[in-house]
Amino acid sequence: MASHSPARSMVRTFIRNYSAPVDSSIPANKLKYVPTSGTYPKGFRVSGTHVGVKASNTSKPDLAFVTSDTPASAAAVFTTNKFQAAPVQVSKAVLQSRGGANLRSIIINSGCANAVTGKGGMEDAQAMSDTATAQFQQSSQPEDDNLGSTSLVMSTGVIGQRLPIKKILTGIPTAYQNLDNDHNAWLTTAKAICTTDTFPKLLSTTFTLPSTSHRGTQYTLAGMTKGAGMIHPNMATLLGILCTDAPISPGAAQSLLTDAVNKSFNSISIDGDTSTNDTVALLANGAASPSPDAPAVPDDPSDQDYAAMASVLTSFAQRLSQLVVRDGEGATKFVQVTVRRAPSHADAKAIASTIARSPLVKTALYGKDANWGRILCAIGYTPGISPDAVVPGKTNVSFVPAETSKSKDEGVLDLLVNGEPEAVDEDRAARLLEDEDLEIVVDLGTGDQEAKYWFCDFSHEYVTINGDYRT
Amino acid sequence: MASHSPARSMVRTFIRNYSAPVDSSIPANKLKYVPTSGTYPKGFRVSGTHVGVKASNTSKPDLAFVTSDTPASAAAVFTTNKFQAAPVQVSKAVLQSRGGANLRSIIINSGCANAVTGKGGMEDAQAMSDTATAQFQQSSQPEDDNLGSTSLVMSTGVIGQRLPIKKILTGIPTAYQNLDNDHNAWLTTAKAICTTDTFPKLLSTTFTLPSTSHRGTQYTLAGMTKGAGMIHPNMATLLGILCTDAPISPGAAQSLLTDAVNKSFNSISIDGDTSTNDTVALLANGAASPSPDAPAVPDDPSDQDYAAMASVLTSFAQRLSQLVVRDGEGATKFVQVTVRRAPSHADAKAIASTIARSPLVKTALYGKDANWGRILCAIGYTPGISPDAVVPGKTNVSFVPAETSKSKDEGVLDLLVNGEPEAVDEDRAARLLEDEDLEIVVDLGTGDQEAKYWFCDFSHEYVTINGDYRT
Repeated sequence: MASHSPARSMVRTFIRNYSAPVDSSIPANKLKYVPTSGTYPKGFRVSGTHVGVKASNTSKPDLAFVTSDTPASAAAVFTTNKFQAAPVQVSKAVLQSRGGANLRSIIINSGCANAVTGKGGMEDAQAMSDTATAQFQQSSQPEDDNLGSTSLVMSTGVIGQRLPIKKILTGIPTAYQNLDNDHNAWLTTAKAICTTDTFPKLLSTTFTLPSTSHRGTQYTLAGMTKGAGMIHPNMATLLGILCTDAPISPGAAQSLLTDAVNKSFNSISIDGDTSTNDTVALLANGAASPSPDAPAVPDDPSDQDYAAMASVLTSFAQRLSQLVVRDGEGATKFVQVTVRRAPSHADAKAIASTIARSPLVKTALYGKDANWGRILCAIGYTPGISPDAVVPGKTNVSFVPAETSKSKDEGVLDLLVNGEPEAVDEDRAARLLEDEDLEIVVDLGTGDQEAKYWFCDFSHEYVTINGDYRT
Repeated sequence: MASHSPARSMVRTFIRNYSAPVDSSIPANKLKYVPTSGTYPKGFRVSGTHVGVKASNTSKPDLAFVTSDTPASAAAVFTTNKFQAAPVQVSKAVLQSRGGANLRSIIINSGCANAVTGKGGMEDAQAMSDTATAQFQQSSQPEDDNLGSTSLVMSTGVIGQRLPIKKILTGIPTAYQNLDNDHNAWLTTAKAICTTDTFPKLLSTTFTLPSTSHRGTQYTLAGMTKGAGMIHPNMATLLGILCTDAPISPGAAQSLLTDAVNKSFNSISIDGDTSTNDTVALLANGAASPSPDAPAVPDDPSDQDYAAMASVLTSFAQRLSQLVVRDGEGATKFVQVTVRRAPSHADAKAIASTIARSPLVKTALYGKDANWGRILCAIGYTPGISPDAVVPGKTNVSFVPAETSKSKDEGVLDLLVNGEPEAVDEDRAARLLEDEDLEIVVDLGTGDQEAKYWFCDFSHEYVTINGDYRT
């Protein structure tokens, strides 16, 4: 180990902060992903407040509060990890108790995951939810409906440590007072949920719904997320919060969100690890409805508003989740892998996921090495796919330059055609791999289904960050 | 990327050679794993010869030849990767054609995997096998039996490049002339199969069989293997060659080897990648039999000789495969994970494997961080286990000091007891993690089955080695 010290101490200078990034610390190449303005949904107010969950954090916001002025439909997708953190269990119970209706807020802390904290941890999560709920009861807002908490709760950070719960509970009234609806409030809130993220992840967009009742009404969708390690489907230490002022029925909110997450947050990988805390939630308050009579989007995939909403939400969730990959711990590359002509979507996604998780593929990309053998290898050991999905003699692998690539005009670079290696122009490959963005296309030639997946490389900095996380 | 250059160039000084290690290059802490003497099985002669598969290799042995003076039973376990390298396909055909009987040799090159090389690659692999076979036909050895090749073939190295086949075919007669049966010959042969290995992996042992016909006869088992990346069950760029002078029937050789490999070479992980070339083969020539009439070990698990042979072979294969983990690319830790009180062996092995593959667990171990939350997390997201295998309130996780640990007298360090975190003595944890060797015990409390698994950590050096491999 001693012999590693010089290298490690050099790498250490690249270590991130483990709380909200300040503007001056955002890497120059990431600044373009931080919006300087936005259009935010009506009837939502948000805040990011410093409470000092980690004693070492003396100034940065670490308590986020996302609220709706009126009761909102709510839905969430939770981690599938068997060890579900206390906030996950509490949020599930709150959603279930309310049938996804009449939620008011989401209270989130960074710095401590409140996971594997036993009975005490459950009490802490419930106290966060109850204290957030109480803010609305003490105000002039609509009365409590006796269904208990109206607030979901999320936590992210180190596992196995108890929350400094007094600090958090004392901070919630301050967080309530800090609520606002301008760009600065949304950006500060997005910062407050960060852990090892190097930049806050915030997006907003406007859209319309096609049915007569909604035609001509502009709706807004805003969302924030955080990474940046332990990211893999189903899911990771990943939080996502989506808010819209469109009216959506509770059932539709859940099915729309589940589908969007499967094609976005569950189609990205940083390191293949899946955490105890992951939650993506959607609040829809209908505050931009043209009239109180305008019908909420129904839970019916054949409905035209449902279909439009599904398209908007999926595309938005994809853009949001891609920001997590952009900020993957230690990442220097952003890679889209497309697996096409597979017998089923499940086969295509399994193969894409296996490529995205392969440490050998990821280190080759970091080393800017067009080592397609490792990609092929990963295709070949994908577990659980149908027997006829991969036929060596039908397999094609190509690199496609990104839209932003300097070598875009040179077009697609075929590496393997029908199972036979091409004589690869290594100079061209090297130029392609100089780009931050790259697309890998795998054409299986055994069906007509496709899946996309987004991932990053494995670098020295990933090892440094994750070898040092707790210290 | 520019900002990484200083760190990378420092780390670069730790890069390995990509061909056989010379004695002077073996790291001091690995020298203890290289035997200085051995007892080798009767009737086997081996050699390691330089042919220069890689043009940059001007002197180190890269062609290994393992031969039996008389026809031997043979068995092999091959990679499950869909893209099976040419030598894997040829070896399978040779074994099948002969029904596992009357094999004479294994010819192995390092430096090029002859994988994904199309029809030409198949011809090259067949030519290697045929040329090896021809050596015996040209000598005074027993005549050809008209069943075709008597030689298995293995290759390891970069994927997708053709072999310099003329160099190899020209080198095989030299390799035949170099055959010998002393320790130096075995060690040189073990070196010739290495790629990124920092030390040759060679073991030998003696044993007896309990039945009357064999009692009092000393048999010998010798084996060599190579790693060191792309190691994960079913399997990896991993070659293993086992030779014994005990008589074993072809059927018994295959079932004994399959079982031993499942508990050894298929229970280790370096990085979770599974290669196109992996092969572990066993040759048994019966040369130490007390008489030509002594019965071969039969393919019958209830037979006492079979049971004794199974125990010897499994334990030997475990020791041999552990050497691969000791030499995991960039590894600084050797970790045994034991998952016990599981509902089934499959559940226990799946959980152990998931822990062994988690980049977050592996980087925490590199950072000497007792971050049991990441272990728990990996337990919790293990795919495909029975629904009742993991019950958070019954889960226990401990660190156990290795036999060689300075803190061995301090005993077991409990991290999680029945799902509740212990107040961990971080100083004790730090002392435990100073050791190269560590055991992690996961007690699920949901059954009575157990599995063991061996793995290493993820270090900066792993990234360096694999980011630079081809260049």
